[in-house]
Amino acid sequence: MPVTQAMIDSAYKAIQPFIRTTPLDLSIGLSEITGVNIWLKKEHQQYTGSFKLRGALNCISHLSNEQKQLGVITASSGNHGLGVAMAGKITGTKVTVFVPKTTSEIKVEAIKNLGAKLEFVDGDVLTAELTGSSLAKETGSYYISPYNDPLVIAGQSTLGIEIHQQLPSAKAVFMSVGGGGLISGIGSFYKENRIDTEIVGCWPVNAPALLKCIEQGKINDVSEYPTLSDSTAGGIEADSITFPIAQKVIDQYYTVVESEISHAMHKLAAYEREIVEGSAGVALAAILQQAKKYHKKDVVVVLCGNNISFDKWIEVIEPYHFNKKIKINYCVK
Amino acid sequence: MPVTQAMIDSAYKAIQPFIRTTPLDLSIGLSEITGVNIWLKKEHQQYTGSFKLRGALNCISHLSNEQKQLGVITASSGNHGLGVAMAGKITGTKVTVFVPKTTSEIKVEAIKNLGAKLEFVDGDVLTAELTGSSLAKETGSYYISPYNDPLVIAGQSTLGIEIHQQLPSAKAVFMSVGGGGLISGIGSFYKENRIDTEIVGCWPVNAPALLKCIEQGKINDVSEYPTLSDSTAGGIEADSITFPIAQKVIDQYYTVVESEISHAMHKLAAYEREIVEGSAGVALAAILQQAKKYHKKDVVVVLCGNNISFDKWIEVIEPYHFNKKIKINYCVK
Repeated sequence: MPVTQAMIDSAYKAIQPFIRTTPLDLSIGLSEITGVNIWLKKEHQQYTGSFKLRGALNCISHLSNEQKQLGVITASSGNHGLGVAMAGKITGTKVTVFVPKTTSEIKVEAIKNLGAKLEFVDGDVLTAELTGSSLAKETGSYYISPYNDPLVIAGQSTLGIEIHQQLPSAKAVFMSVGGGGLISGIGSFYKENRIDTEIVGCWPVNAPALLKCIEQGKINDVSEYPTLSDSTAGGIEADSITFPIAQKVIDQYYTVVESEISHAMHKLAAYEREIVEGSAGVALAAILQQAKKYHKKDVVVVLCGNNISFDKWIEVIEPYHFNKKIKINYCVK
Repeated sequence: MPVTQAMIDSAYKAIQPFIRTTPLDLSIGLSEITGVNIWLKKEHQQYTGSFKLRGALNCISHLSNEQKQLGVITASSGNHGLGVAMAGKITGTKVTVFVPKTTSEIKVEAIKNLGAKLEFVDGDVLTAELTGSSLAKETGSYYISPYNDPLVIAGQSTLGIEIHQQLPSAKAVFMSVGGGGLISGIGSFYKENRIDTEIVGCWPVNAPALLKCIEQGKINDVSEYPTLSDSTAGGIEADSITFPIAQKVIDQYYTVVESEISHAMHKLAAYEREIVEGSAGVALAAILQQAKKYHKKDVVVVLCGNNISFDKWIEVIEPYHFNKKIKINYCVK
């Protein structure tokens, strides 16, 4: 396995003093309506509002002093960009984030507030990534990929350590999958330790890139459609190490449609008064869908982030609340 | 002072291993719109969703084994009832909670889920309190008051310890006041340690019982009107020790009207994606009102609880979100 127990231990040692050990709480309400013991891993309460800090911080922590001096580069206006910026702040490392010129002011401000430098590029996220990574090659700076890096994956694996410490009896851990960094990390921890907990990947039907690649046995371009789980959407890099890891560690997977995601986001607010982004809704939606199969079992749902604008969130949950006709704008084409 | 440094230290030692040290986070968004560095003490993420666990747990922790064997009694269907029930669960102590027959099913279930026994009485909360406390006298069981007990106050003081550890530079700590247990606890910690941080009491104009008593120099009946801050509403017991303590520790106070509370609850959701109850909204509303006076200062706002039904919450914030005509049902008569 590309991410070994030694790397996981080293990650935990490096980042644990600087991150929040997030709560794992039983949801009485969601457990009652499903018949499953639903435990919520509240990683949306992590600094920057997502787990991405873990991987970024582990990455920077393992750089040589020379590399740290040069600063690090990344390209992401979302959770990963925030995570790298925060990791830079914690470690005193210069961070440059490449983003498209069209990035919203609120995301730009959030990254700036963490002290990172922004570089705006003409074009989309892929152009930003290519510009950032080629500059990194030129200057010798380290380019932090959102998922395609063993150090990033080892950082995310610390979530597995925490979950296992908090609930050794967990029958399954449900999490949404995008590039696969999170599930590769958590899965590596459980498999390396031969712990019999089911690793469950959850995808929106509209954005199943890594799932389709696994089904086809190789990394391919996959058509995707708009999804509430915007932070997990997008294709997989051709050489991504998350592909072989995900192939090995994922025991089970489920897909959910957009209305299941929004319904799950509403249920979480109604029963737990927690506001989360769509990707977290995906994981909860999957266990709501599969409740019969996990009857009376201890199931962990990773609430992986809360970076959704409040306007967007309320638009998503509002139809459920006011019993209006439910109109979902997102659908499988 | 009725609550000494020794009692505060003893409380921290007793309860710290069993409670959550809740985050104190700078709100970038709220700081930007106010010009004040607004730090949110996220005590609504405490077990049971409020600070009340601290006082209840400290109380039970300091009982003799004989008293623990007899079990404890309280009367509250709100945060205090939940706190005592949870404290009983943590310590393995039998808890009986007296509540009015009219208590909502959801509150009854929440207390039952924590393993406490419920006793239903005809009449209101005061009747429940009198029934509970007289049974306690008869049986020799300890009656845990929501605020009129030095051990309860010492338990709440541990919030002061945490805040000071997390932000020694705090210029002021804003918190809502009901019976006065919270502000007596936090205030005792700061005053006992001669720390120059302003202790700020925040009241709804509609429910200012303890404030009026302080202004009049004695405990009186005070007329109150409905408020979103239902968990701080209600009169003060005739012999309450929070009265002399609050007189000494409160450096400043502000009052807010109902529309300021709902506006603050919406702002918190919009900028921080946090759902809190009205009493927490009171404290945030006060600093929003007084922002000019605290320009560029580090100000802590205690988010003291999140026990509000989601239906109620969305009804409160919805008018702000959808830019509908703001109709406030609560007003000063």
